[in-house]
Amino acid sequence: MEEQTKAQARWAVESLLARRTRGMRGSDIRDAFKLTERPDLISLAGGFPDEAAFPLDEVAGLIERLLAREGGRVFQYGPTEGSSELRSRVAEGMGRLGVAVPPEEVLLTSGSQQALDLIGRVLLDPGDVVLVESPGYVGGLSAFAAYEAQLVGVEMDREGLIPEDLERQLLRLRREGARVKLLYTVPTFQNPTGACLPAERRAALLDLAAEYGFLIVEDDPYREICFGSPPPPPLAATGAGRVLYLGSFSKVFLPGLRVGWVAGPAELIARLSLAKQPADLCSSLFGQKLVEAYLAEGRLAPRTAVLREEYRVKCEALHEALRAEDLPIEWERPGGGFFLWVTLPEGGDARRLLETARREGVAFVPGEAFHVTAGGGRRSLRLAYSQSSPERLREAAARLGRAIRAHLSEKAGIFPAPVKWVDTPLHPARGAAAQ
Amino acid sequence: MEEQTKAQARWAVESLLARRTRGMRGSDIRDAFKLTERPDLISLAGGFPDEAAFPLDEVAGLIERLLAREGGRVFQYGPTEGSSELRSRVAEGMGRLGVAVPPEEVLLTSGSQQALDLIGRVLLDPGDVVLVESPGYVGGLSAFAAYEAQLVGVEMDREGLIPEDLERQLLRLRREGARVKLLYTVPTFQNPTGACLPAERRAALLDLAAEYGFLIVEDDPYREICFGSPPPPPLAATGAGRVLYLGSFSKVFLPGLRVGWVAGPAELIARLSLAKQPADLCSSLFGQKLVEAYLAEGRLAPRTAVLREEYRVKCEALHEALRAEDLPIEWERPGGGFFLWVTLPEGGDARRLLETARREGVAFVPGEAFHVTAGGGRRSLRLAYSQSSPERLREAAARLGRAIRAHLSEKAGIFPAPVKWVDTPLHPARGAAAQ
Repeated sequence: MEEQTKAQARWAVESLLARRTRGMRGSDIRDAFKLTERPDLISLAGGFPDEAAFPLDEVAGLIERLLAREGGRVFQYGPTEGSSELRSRVAEGMGRLGVAVPPEEVLLTSGSQQALDLIGRVLLDPGDVVLVESPGYVGGLSAFAAYEAQLVGVEMDREGLIPEDLERQLLRLRREGARVKLLYTVPTFQNPTGACLPAERRAALLDLAAEYGFLIVEDDPYREICFGSPPPPPLAATGAGRVLYLGSFSKVFLPGLRVGWVAGPAELIARLSLAKQPADLCSSLFGQKLVEAYLAEGRLAPRTAVLREEYRVKCEALHEALRAEDLPIEWERPGGGFFLWVTLPEGGDARRLLETARREGVAFVPGEAFHVTAGGGRRSLRLAYSQSSPERLREAAARLGRAIRAHLSEKAGIFPAPVKWVDTPLHPARGAAAQ
Repeated sequence: MEEQTKAQARWAVESLLARRTRGMRGSDIRDAFKLTERPDLISLAGGFPDEAAFPLDEVAGLIERLLAREGGRVFQYGPTEGSSELRSRVAEGMGRLGVAVPPEEVLLTSGSQQALDLIGRVLLDPGDVVLVESPGYVGGLSAFAAYEAQLVGVEMDREGLIPEDLERQLLRLRREGARVKLLYTVPTFQNPTGACLPAERRAALLDLAAEYGFLIVEDDPYREICFGSPPPPPLAATGAGRVLYLGSFSKVFLPGLRVGWVAGPAELIARLSLAKQPADLCSSLFGQKLVEAYLAEGRLAPRTAVLREEYRVKCEALHEALRAEDLPIEWERPGGGFFLWVTLPEGGDARRLLETARREGVAFVPGEAFHVTAGGGRRSLRLAYSQSSPERLREAAARLGRAIRAHLSEKAGIFPAPVKWVDTPLHPARGAAAQ
């Protein structure tokens, strides 16, 4: 009887779901996190910053001083748009990147993921087109997909988004009468490819935005994690009124505080702030105050210098160890960020490879997770070097090497001959090619 | 030229807004916060907990032990559904309230406001009906309105939601073919009225939910702030599969950590968790860990006892001071929570009163903010006693007294005779009536 009641209630609940909810599915990446919580497994799946690099001693002192100075108010509800002092500091920091922004045009969010969500909420009607990088960041894709946008992938190469393909898509969409609202891009040390868009391509994107009347969402969390010469200025620096710029303290300070921001045209920031009220009233004031104190004490710049070097060493460790494995795979050595994007030879299948790899004790995210078209990225895998030590990364490369060899020899029956790796010329700006 | 470009860009931005965004407006309450940041003004507007009562010393020690014990991982990204230890502790706490819930049926959110938002996202199609208390909590109303739900107000009296009016509305809506998805209620020490729904009415609500096939969203942040005998058990205790229960640590611990939760049918919690991924990936793990440590060290129960007494004293101070003013106004003395809901005599206008009151140096939220029908709550005002000391509350009552007398004497020209207060019998469970 009670079982029957429960079953009825369950049916009732299912029948109450909103239309948009019924097709909803989880992200492959979040699933990957769950699968990789085995201690014997080296996970290159989650693109998390290295928690061993969190400045715990600094933070402990910072909290002590913060509580002594500001008392209970740091634990109170805060303004929806965020702490005004931190908004000012963020605006200053953007000024140093060449983006002139007053504090009122900065909205602090619960990580920049919330900014993506609010942008979808404020700008997207069902069926609107969002142009996305293919492959592109899953969190961005899923945020816009949640508002029933039509995601249209734009091709990437080793330098990032290809403006010519973007224009092709725009022409086609215009012919079809589609309503193109946004282009979503991570132009600097992209997730998942690590690519960094050159200045000329940035200019071309902005020209297309003005010509075709869409906004650019520039998601820029990896800019400071830069291994060589600094990346070109943000699109927002020259995109006056056309760009929503998203930044985050998650990669350079502490992700668990959930402090990110969006900066852009005043009228849009006002709308995003209005949309944030029913979403969560306000973000954690304590998190914002802690970031604010970190910046006020001048700790971010020296810290970032340390992080750059740490992540550069990790990147190099994985890169060199994979080279030493001498595998028939291809990747571009990134100039910054957290990721190495690997392509398997013709006929490779990253999802199937993952099964083998997990048996070997290593995990990654298969490339399909980053594509909006079925079958895209089948031969690709994202390796995050951010979270493991150089020693673990070398071990991971060895395990991955075994897995890839096993995967390809399974495949050998399918292919007429063993796959042969062909060396390719590199993008000169970002160092040596890799095999 | 640059101005022209900016103007063009502004136009372009406006033209890109989603349909639902165009009519969006801010909440009166958030506006009230901004208006009341004058130090000479006593604000009874924001329903904030008293930050002077935050246990700062306890928290400082707690953070120190937390960092020593758990290290950097408390600042890492966390699981979307929240820390598993805290989910277990919340489930245990709900068990003590008579609600049997496994940890998997608890989703931690960025304050319970985010739970409201996720519920709207997962359950509401445009035009779906959400039944709400009239007056009701603004954050709930705005969360559901953001999903283009049709909000239908149900009448309240001193005991809260009136089941007979609910049934009338349900019959009418059924005749009209409306799709009723949710009833949203704050049954215990309601915001804004302070009313506490008796057990019989709770049972009646559950019967109607089963009969008419809707879900109840039970928002319960004030339960622990209880001045006399404990309130009846939550609706969720007997609502098996029909109730989404929302809880929060904002009133009993620290709102600035943004830690709330929603518990309910497993299949719905799974959907809400899926919907949270694109919304913000995860809430602050640090905030969750701090709450977890607070609970683990057994600090919540003794702390809650202290808070109950502090808020009881505040409530009494405002109540007695208003009585002493001998004004022709009416209110019910609440049995718990943060609010006192005042009704002006016929012809009073709380919005106009607020102008006078601000000149006198006191602020509140006019009742219209809590109503979904135009003109509702025109004579009502919400006084939050939570944030001010008893002394300040007495001063606030004196200022409010002057403002009300001035307001009513302005009105005297309109009315044939001075308004006369009539004493009304009280709800026996919750103490003395008030004038």
